[in-house]
Amino acid sequence: MTQSQHSRDVVAYMEELGQRARHAAQAMASADTRSKNTALLAIADGIEAARQTLARANRRDLDAGRQRGLSEALLDRLQLSEARITAMAEGLRQIQALPDPVGEVAQLSQRPSGIEVGRMRVPLGVIGIVYESRPNVTADAAGLCLKSGNATILRGGSEAIHSNLAIAHCIQAGLAAGDLPGDAVQVVEVTDRSAVGALLSMPEHVDVIVPRGGKGLIERVSRESMVPVIKHLDGVCHVFVDNDADIAKAVAIAYNAKTQRYGTCNTMETLLIAEPVAERVLADLGPMYRDAGVELRGCARTCEVLSSALPATDEDWSTEYLAPILSIRVVPDLTAAIDHIHRYGSRHTDAIVTENLGKARRFLREVDSSSVMVNASTRFADGFEYGLGAEIGISTDKLHARGPVGLEGLTTQKFIVLGDGHIRD
Amino acid sequence: MTQSQHSRDVVAYMEELGQRARHAAQAMASADTRSKNTALLAIADGIEAARQTLARANRRDLDAGRQRGLSEALLDRLQLSEARITAMAEGLRQIQALPDPVGEVAQLSQRPSGIEVGRMRVPLGVIGIVYESRPNVTADAAGLCLKSGNATILRGGSEAIHSNLAIAHCIQAGLAAGDLPGDAVQVVEVTDRSAVGALLSMPEHVDVIVPRGGKGLIERVSRESMVPVIKHLDGVCHVFVDNDADIAKAVAIAYNAKTQRYGTCNTMETLLIAEPVAERVLADLGPMYRDAGVELRGCARTCEVLSSALPATDEDWSTEYLAPILSIRVVPDLTAAIDHIHRYGSRHTDAIVTENLGKARRFLREVDSSSVMVNASTRFADGFEYGLGAEIGISTDKLHARGPVGLEGLTTQKFIVLGDGHIRD
Repeated sequence: MTQSQHSRDVVAYMEELGQRARHAAQAMASADTRSKNTALLAIADGIEAARQTLARANRRDLDAGRQRGLSEALLDRLQLSEARITAMAEGLRQIQALPDPVGEVAQLSQRPSGIEVGRMRVPLGVIGIVYESRPNVTADAAGLCLKSGNATILRGGSEAIHSNLAIAHCIQAGLAAGDLPGDAVQVVEVTDRSAVGALLSMPEHVDVIVPRGGKGLIERVSRESMVPVIKHLDGVCHVFVDNDADIAKAVAIAYNAKTQRYGTCNTMETLLIAEPVAERVLADLGPMYRDAGVELRGCARTCEVLSSALPATDEDWSTEYLAPILSIRVVPDLTAAIDHIHRYGSRHTDAIVTENLGKARRFLREVDSSSVMVNASTRFADGFEYGLGAEIGISTDKLHARGPVGLEGLTTQKFIVLGDGHIRD
Repeated sequence: MTQSQHSRDVVAYMEELGQRARHAAQAMASADTRSKNTALLAIADGIEAARQTLARANRRDLDAGRQRGLSEALLDRLQLSEARITAMAEGLRQIQALPDPVGEVAQLSQRPSGIEVGRMRVPLGVIGIVYESRPNVTADAAGLCLKSGNATILRGGSEAIHSNLAIAHCIQAGLAAGDLPGDAVQVVEVTDRSAVGALLSMPEHVDVIVPRGGKGLIERVSRESMVPVIKHLDGVCHVFVDNDADIAKAVAIAYNAKTQRYGTCNTMETLLIAEPVAERVLADLGPMYRDAGVELRGCARTCEVLSSALPATDEDWSTEYLAPILSIRVVPDLTAAIDHIHRYGSRHTDAIVTENLGKARRFLREVDSSSVMVNASTRFADGFEYGLGAEIGISTDKLHARGPVGLEGLTTQKFIVLGDGHIRD
């Protein structure tokens, strides 16, 4: 088969998946909560019952990965350990326990014309998920899309194909148990890269794409997609310690925001401190960070106070380290802090520590990030902490969904109008 | 100057507009309601005071348009009559009277960790409006974007440039009266087509594009834009008369939905009738449509009942006539009606006429359109009728804004978190 024939086959295959998904989406939109919950529990049970099979399929992927020379970090992400299999099943049970967002009617009210107008929450339709090596995304994403009444096309990394197909098998059995169409969740079986391109080029069959993975993947998907994308880019998060801060709270929050976990997108990457309290705050925090093994990169003033800090470059201010490294800048005041955040931040999560109400209100209003906090650690920016339940990701976009995206972000609202023979004059 | 030099100049000019807009957006986001309302009233007053100047500028556009051989329809759209100037001013006063959506905090509640989490409504940032010959869009769009705290870049049709710049002059004076940055509303002064391309290629400076105009413009903008687009495509709207309909209501609604105005996107284009009541409904409606001069194109069964109907082709079912033409199809039942709407509709506005609660609920749930109605004319699908106030357009997209887009559609929500030194365990 020639290369171009092959590409045509992939496109035709994806087109068929798209048509099937569009068709299934119609049935899913009116599926009742009981059917969806039955399916979710059946998938969870099925995954636990299939531990052996899943482990075997995963071993094939791991062996192939080792032969292809994948890095240890990638192999770790690829692995379906006992604990991860249990976590997948538990995640599905948690999604099952969440309230069904579909069909909720809000703001129903009567208008002067006599009609009643409200908004009904409905699924988006067909959601394409493009992800990399973690096979557990297959179950997580399928569960969230299923509960929110959407059909899904899942395109995982080629290195996880056997694991993903084994999970897909459990999902199919679960859908059947809930009397839901098998096409409601389809795993792309073609590992060819052109399958992603085809998925991104079917706005008639796919309503939204959610890329999950590294920055390279997300940038490629955003650039190429003709379908709207809900995406998460950088998390360059700030904590600003105002001169009216309670210093004990400031120290606790700044320490927690950096050290509680290093590799997460809501970890603080830059600490901003108002000049009047800089010495006191740095005197406390310097040794704490040193003991935790955090490398400090500071502005000139910071380096003056903390001899252990290295000089920061301009690049540091816009870097998401995802590592035990922190940049620190002493700023004159709140205005300078907000300017810094606007210039270097990534609109993800930013916090102020202050006891001054006026400054807190100004920070909340003026900082244009998906989460803006007062006197709390940036690490709280998370769907579970916010009470949304499981999340499909955190959006750094402004349109549609902003911040942690849970079930609600996978739905939309349509207007409903109720009349009794009403016509317009 | 060579062509490529010229293009570079246009790109540089647009880039500068983008940077200015991004800067102004920051000030606009924290502008208080009083300043915004002062500006809106000052613009309205300024437009009325500048009637002579506006009429003169408009005459230049009309003269140039006639010389270039623009059609009468285009020249009509281009015209700024006395009545249209008054309507622009009145529109701005209505926007001034609407509640300010910015800063509203919703769903603030305490989480088990002790933090309080809520959502604050904030402007989108910078909105690009791309429109054609109607100069009144300049004032309408600027007013809506201003009230919702956004900065705007307005790119109207080259044929309206003098009218648009004259309106822009009034807007500038009004912004100054409200102590708001002049860059909050910028009218593109370059009439070169490449200015649109440049505007669509600046996601770093522009947060959303709203195209206003014919289908050609909207399709071009959607295809080329690297910035998210809120758009309105076709309005192929349906009324389905169920066999449990009150025939008098059905006849009134079907007549109103078609004939109240022909050229609007929420006008019914296809009437679906359940077979058991088809003869009665058509017997009433046939003469009414004939008297109104509506051309009927029917399925075989319709033509059997109504000798005046011409046979409809498959193309008719997906055509937005925007004219006194109606396609009519007799269908076996509700399921067939929903299938027809899914296959041929444009997801804009669709209505059922029925007294049966179960069927009404099913139609509301299963029809995937931005407005779904029971016993009301599709002509109600409108921002004013829904109580949203003025609208920037009607979105047939699903993400972000669906249906009539008013002030709320020009904003987004960010999460706010309030703590008292809270850190994550």
